[in-house]
Amino acid sequence: MVAIQDLYDEKFSHCYGCGKRNPQGNQLKSYIVDGHTVARFRPKPEQTGGVPEHAYGGLIASLFDCHGAASAAAFEYEATTGHLENNSRLKRYVTASLKVEFLRPTPMGQEITIKGKCRRIDGRKVWVDMEISVKDEVCAVAEMLAIQLK
Amino acid sequence: MVAIQDLYDEKFSHCYGCGKRNPQGNQLKSYIVDGHTVARFRPKPEQTGGVPEHAYGGLIASLFDCHGAASAAAFEYEATTGHLENNSRLKRYVTASLKVEFLRPTPMGQEITIKGKCRRIDGRKVWVDMEISVKDEVCAVAEMLAIQLK
Repeated sequence: MVAIQDLYDEKFSHCYGCGKRNPQGNQLKSYIVDGHTVARFRPKPEQTGGVPEHAYGGLIASLFDCHGAASAAAFEYEATTGHLENNSRLKRYVTASLKVEFLRPTPMGQEITIKGKCRRIDGRKVWVDMEISVKDEVCAVAEMLAIQLK
Repeated sequence: MVAIQDLYDEKFSHCYGCGKRNPQGNQLKSYIVDGHTVARFRPKPEQTGGVPEHAYGGLIASLFDCHGAASAAAFEYEATTGHLENNSRLKRYVTASLKVEFLRPTPMGQEITIKGKCRRIDGRKVWVDMEISVKDEVCAVAEMLAIQLK
């Protein structure tokens, strides 16, 4: 299965959150499965919030940011072109707005799951709903408006 | 002038975004001046978005996250206790919700200014409005609801 981010054009592959050409970044990989998107991430030990036991809120927002933009690209591709494949060329989306609700602290030391689903596609705009969970407990939810780069 | 984050209790000083005890983090420092808050930050070269010329959206959200929580603590202190001083003991706030609107790309290679103002304080809740600018051009705005830890 190919990661959505690995289908971005080379010039868009420097993102600190998910770019394959950014060795110091998080290199998040998102996948589309049965019309939904999923990514998994294990925070580095230093990526804590104010207390060492919880993940940093900015990291949570960052995971939503990259996963949402990738989800928008994949949802648009599957809506207009067909199933994502190894040689698919994706349009690149950027975040216009992102709202994150932190429901409970996200624990450190465990794998985080980020899920996305498509709410709506309208021209160059895609609305994505997301959630972050650890061991099936939802820790944060988000909604994003992503816009296709011209 | 003392940074708001330097007045957090030691046990809350590990934040990846602003903790003085997190040497690998961003160590953001926020200040309160005439009832408003301000912080300045220069992104590291690797903290780009999809293209190398623009700052990472997750970094923008992270700067708002730390600056907003610090602003909430300072606004509450000044509303209830008085001017912030070197020996003030702040209550710690965490983010309940954060909405970021990305108005235009934030350029790399320059200092980012983050400003905050208090919209409302109600019990343990503080609402903070923020903006991020480079050379006086606003690149992103945000609103946060921060909640005081018990």
